[in-house]
Order: sequence, then structure tokens, then C-alpha cells
Amino acid sequence: MSTSNREQLDKRYNEIKARGLSLDMTRGKPCGPQLDLSSGLLDCLGRDFKAADGTDCRNYGVLDGLPEAKKLFAEFLEVTPAEIIVAGNSSLALMHDSVAQAVLRGVPGGSQPWHGAKFLCPSPGYDRHFAVCEHLGIEMINVRMTEEGPDMDEVERLTSGDESIKGIWCVPKYSNPTGVVFSDAVVDRLARMKAAPDFRVFWDNAYTVHHLTDRPRPLKNLLSACKEAGNADRVLIFGSTSKVSFAGAGVAMMAGSEANVAYTKQNMSLQTIGPDKVNQLRHVRFFRDMAGIEAHMKKHAAILKPKFDAVTAILDREIGDSGAATWTRPAGGYFISVDTKDGCAKAVVKMAAEAGAKLTSAGATFPHGKDPRDRNIRIAPSMPSQAEIEQAMELVAICIQRVALGS
Amino acid sequence: MSTSNREQLDKRYNEIKARGLSLDMTRGKPCGPQLDLSSGLLDCLGRDFKAADGTDCRNYGVLDGLPEAKKLFAEFLEVTPAEIIVAGNSSLALMHDSVAQAVLRGVPGGSQPWHGAKFLCPSPGYDRHFAVCEHLGIEMINVRMTEEGPDMDEVERLTSGDESIKGIWCVPKYSNPTGVVFSDAVVDRLARMKAAPDFRVFWDNAYTVHHLTDRPRPLKNLLSACKEAGNADRVLIFGSTSKVSFAGAGVAMMAGSEANVAYTKQNMSLQTIGPDKVNQLRHVRFFRDMAGIEAHMKKHAAILKPKFDAVTAILDREIGDSGAATWTRPAGGYFISVDTKDGCAKAVVKMAAEAGAKLTSAGATFPHGKDPRDRNIRIAPSMPSQAEIEQAMELVAICIQRVALGS
Repeated sequence: MSTSNREQLDKRYNEIKARGLSLDMTRGKPCGPQLDLSSGLLDCLGRDFKAADGTDCRNYGVLDGLPEAKKLFAEFLEVTPAEIIVAGNSSLALMHDSVAQAVLRGVPGGSQPWHGAKFLCPSPGYDRHFAVCEHLGIEMINVRMTEEGPDMDEVERLTSGDESIKGIWCVPKYSNPTGVVFSDAVVDRLARMKAAPDFRVFWDNAYTVHHLTDRPRPLKNLLSACKEAGNADRVLIFGSTSKVSFAGAGVAMMAGSEANVAYTKQNMSLQTIGPDKVNQLRHVRFFRDMAGIEAHMKKHAAILKPKFDAVTAILDREIGDSGAATWTRPAGGYFISVDTKDGCAKAVVKMAAEAGAKLTSAGATFPHGKDPRDRNIRIAPSMPSQAEIEQAMELVAICIQRVALGS
Repeated sequence: MSTSNREQLDKRYNEIKARGLSLDMTRGKPCGPQLDLSSGLLDCLGRDFKAADGTDCRNYGVLDGLPEAKKLFAEFLEVTPAEIIVAGNSSLALMHDSVAQAVLRGVPGGSQPWHGAKFLCPSPGYDRHFAVCEHLGIEMINVRMTEEGPDMDEVERLTSGDESIKGIWCVPKYSNPTGVVFSDAVVDRLARMKAAPDFRVFWDNAYTVHHLTDRPRPLKNLLSACKEAGNADRVLIFGSTSKVSFAGAGVAMMAGSEANVAYTKQNMSLQTIGPDKVNQLRHVRFFRDMAGIEAHMKKHAAILKPKFDAVTAILDREIGDSGAATWTRPAGGYFISVDTKDGCAKAVVKMAAEAGAKLTSAGATFPHGKDPRDRNIRIAPSMPSQAEIEQAMELVAICIQRVALGS
């Protein structure tokens, strides 16, 4: 039976391969219809370039963002306007720079630059976070992701015993790639735990409004929890509209205690005269307020939800509870995370690629691209059409089963 | 006679002070009518977001800039499209990051990061260049600016004897604040001189098309000269449209050898998914080609030239060849540089401010804000109206003469 199953899988694989597919599910890119939702952003300004306070957005100045942009995105990140900086088009740039400046100069609460710093990397996680550490020579320590967030017993054990641990990467809501929303208990423990005085939680709230269902999952406010715990400076919050408006032509922001914001502004003042305020103004004019953003995100969900459902429907149908893999059913975000049997992920990704479906490299969701169990595969269903997803996922499911059977 | 002159100056000063002026000539900001020249940039795109090769500019990707933007701005900086990166809105950000990455990781040709690096700072120069060094812990060495560029005897003496000297800041065309255009001989000597293998000329060509006369001053191409001298990797070129289109909502770029470009792209890949391509596309659509940019810059000159003329006319009239000060008559750029008698600049700036005219802080044009002769004052005539300039400069001229007389 195993042999006939093997033969059947090989046959189906070769049939699909013969179709000459060329599908790309590697990255969480919005699809055309999603981008079309924000077409109005392109021409909503007309030639009216004045901010509410009369600022000419075409000229220099306003380092930390237009007042109306700070107001809107403070609500977006659940902080006050005094706790936010609205910047350029990339939250990754803000994160990289926050780490780079800390390596060069330190952070408030620390007595020196982050030389020999280590970071905790809950995994599977976001490859570009880990790449920042690798680039800047920061040692990464794997921490297991649970369904509630990072394994906090392990996090507390590590941070309480080692002051060279300076940071932890978190995508707390609809986490990349697992879709996990951090529980209140995890948020509280991150706020209260013992850690170096210059330790920072890098709270990449990339998917804060990116729900796939009508019942948005709540996330406890870490900045508030840190203030209550007397650790107001512990968290740096990041966000962007890359997957709200335009990917790469949106607005990015960071938030934190007033001390952290003041320090970041001081660093930024050496790097730029200010952000693109015209684009900030476009965003405020187009979305108007949080209700506008929320209504807009429902339209994104209407496009994305059937794609996510297509992925899980095919995995259910093809693999089910056979044990060849498990997968997530996220309530938001951009990814589905599949765990194959140990030692299979690389072979599955290779086999799928050879038949025309490109997936995120196996291991990419772990520090240094090395998944210790070689089992995690990140599926990014946003960009391809539903028909393409169905073809690609059938192929992926076949590969998962075939690799599990061995050669 | 000196007493009566003193009394007359005091009388005029007090009369002007009584008018309650509030003028700001601190920074090289474009004025409203200059920004209006680019109003079409705001709505030239309509909703057509596709680049020439079909790239959807609303989505992620294209790390180093749209092909058509690279083509246009390669011509702008006199390099090839393979030698340029078209990035975000701030050339200062590109400069800061180039230095920061070098401090963290080194540069091609070097064997290690720039620890203990020193920079040569031709002065008077651009305060924000010096601030980058100060921020990143780089020791600054003053070098005298001549009418041909930096004192190259001194530059060669220093770089040939000290491999810890890793950089020199240059604004080679219509220099900030002196208006100097570097001579061919200076360019050749920068290309050929002995220096550390990881030494870089930071060539901030901020005013490359910013002429004030009909006879643009030529600047020899340093990248070509470096290639000829076998030092292709020596120069990093920077530019932006901040004073072509919109200040803060323009497009910034950097250029250099293919090795430097590849290295910078690798660093950038850790920091961002890509620049705001929509804004790059706007710029290409609006300006079309270099002829479009050049025609546009003539309109800027028509606005700026009378303002520059007003500054020098009043200095000629009020101070002339009395010896109380000398000043530049730049053929381009954004500044007029005034040298008072030694030891007078701070007092002049303070006295002018007390009567309502804010000038750039005395000393700002030198490393650490310290002008060793306390004589240089940078005048930024772009922002105020001609009537305001006339009032402010009369006041400044009075202050210069009054301070020169002593108390």
C-alpha cells in the first residue's frame, strides 16, 4: 500500500510538473486587486499640499511626522501622539536603524553601546528580523514559539541570567509565519520580567489591523503593560501601512516611551531633515481616521480570506490528519505555517520548486536560515490567484506526502 | 570720526530693531514660488502606476530604483545606470548610512570596520556633514577651503601619512557655503593622491544643476578621474532633487564604482524592501529627461538670482571695500559666505538676532561648530522675499561694521 501510494504520488507530481507551472508564493506581497483598493491614494491630494496647521508639505522640516499623521497612526498603534514618530516608507529601516544606533551608541538606560549583544529570536519568525542581527554581528538565540507567543519560561530564564541579551524580536499579532496572537499573559511577562536595563522588545506590530475574520483578535498593549511594570522604556513598537495602502509607497512609524522617542528623534536628526510629508498627507486625506482604515481592511480581508481558505482546504483534503504535516489557520496576517515531519521541509521546497511552485526557502523562518528540525514551511497566499493557489497547494501537499514516505 | 560712525551705526541699528522684524535666513530652504514650479509633480501620475517595464510601483521590490529613474539620475550625476542607486527622499540618510555601515562593517578595499576613523573636513563646509562624524565618533580634521576647493597640499600631506584617515567631505560644485567649484586640478589630485585603501571621498554633489547664471560652471567628473587613476572605489557620489522638485518629498541617489554600488545594495537589502517607486515614477513623468530638469532649473534661477543679487548689492553698498568683511559671489548653489574680521562672527549673529534677523549660527560651518577665527557667516537668501532680504542684509551689514569697531 505504501508503495502504491508512493507510485500514485509520483504520478500526480509528474502530471503537475508537466503543466509547466510558474507560481511564486515566497513573499507576503499584496496582489493587484488589494493595491487597487488604494488607487485613490494616487490622486486624492490634487494640488493641495498644506497640512492642517498650514505646513507646506513640499518643503523641509517636521522631523517626526505631520501632526495629523501622528494623530492617526498613534491610534493605529494604540499610543499617544507624543509617543510616535511617523517616518518614511519602511518599518524595516526603522528597526534596522534602531538596532544599528544601539550597537554604535547604546540606548537610554544603558551605560554603553551594545557590543557583544545577543538577541532572542522566537522561531519560526520573520527572516528579515534575523537578517538584521546577522548583519550587525548580534548573536541570535532560538526560542520556541508556542500558540501563546514565545516560550516565556525560556525567555525569562535567559534574560534574567544574562545582561548581554539586549533584545527580542516579536510579531505579536498574526505572527509571521505562525499567525499566533500573543496572549495577555505573555505580554505581561515580557513587561515584567527581569532583563538588562537596556533590553528592548522589538514589537513589530506589522499586522495590527490585518484581520481575516469579523472578530479581530485583541492584543494587550505592551507599552501600557511596560509602564505599569515600571519598565516604560523596554518596548519599541513598529508598524506600517505597507499592507494597508501601497507596499513600498506607504508610511512607516515607530512608537515607545517619550524617552525612547526623544532618543530616536535625536538620532534621526543626524540622518534626515525629515520624512516625505506629502505622502503622509496623502494617507491622512485618503483614510481620514481609524474607522476609514478599518473599513478599508475589511476589503483586504474579502480578497485574502478565500485565498487562505483555499490553502487550508487543500491541505485538509490532501493531507488531513494523516500525520504528514500540521498547519495553522490564522485569523489574520499574511502567512500560513506548515510543519512537515522532521527533516522533510528542505526536500519539499526543492521538489515543489522543480515542478514550478516557488515557496519561501525552508529554514528562512529561523536564525541563520537553519531550522533545527527542518520541518517549517511558510506559505504566502496573498499574491497568486485562487486558481494558482489551488494548483500550487495540491503540488505542495503531494510533495509533503511523498517526501514523508522516503525514497 | 570713528565715534560718529559708531553712533550712526547704533542709531540705524536701533531704528531697524524698533521695526520688530522676524526674518529667518538660517537654512537653505526653497521658497514657495520655487516649490510651485513643481506643482505638476503632485498630480502628474493620475492613477497610472506602471513603470516602463510593467513594474507595479505600488508593490514591493526593486531595491535600487526604477530603471527609468536610474537612467535619468545617472545622467544627472554623470555616471552610468549600473553605477547608481536611486533611493528615498534624503541624500543625508544615504551619507549617514554609508558612514555608519563603514563604522560597523568596513568598506570594499578595507580589511576591517572603520574603528578610530578620522575625516578631513574642508571648512567652512556643511554643518550636517560634520554632525554625522560627531554622532558616529569620527575625529574631524579641519582643512582650509581655497577658491579651488580644499587645500590639496594639506589633504595630500595628511592622507599620505595616516591610514586612519578614511574620508573627506566635499560639496564640489557651488560648495556650501562658499560657492566654490572644485578645479580640475583638485579633482585630479583627489583621484590620484596616496590614501588608505578604504579611504572614501564623500562627494555631495547637492548643487550639480543649481546654477545662478547662464554659464554653468563645469565640474570635472571625479568617478572617471578615480577610474583613470586606478582608484575606482575611492568616491561615493550623492545627489538629490530636494532643491529641484520638493524639499523632503524628492528623490535621493548615490553613485560610485560597481563594487561600491554592489556593497551598498547588499547593506540596503538588510534595511528595506525598496524605495518609494511611486515617487520615483512621478519624478520621471514630470521631468522626462535632463533637458526637462535643466529647463526647470532655469526657472529656479530666475527666482533665486535677484535674491542673491540683493544680498551682494547691499553688502557692496554698506561695506564695500572698507575691510569690515569680504563675501562670495556664487554662480550657483544656495549660500553666500561672509567673512567678517577675525573674532566678530558670533557677535554679529547675536546682534542681528536681537534685532529680528536669524542667521545660521556662527561657527556652524566648522567641525564641532567652532570657527577657529570666528569670522564665517553663512547667508541663506532663498526663503525670504527680496524686500525681507534687503531689510535683513542692511541690518547684517550694520552689525558687521558695528562689531568691527569694538565696544
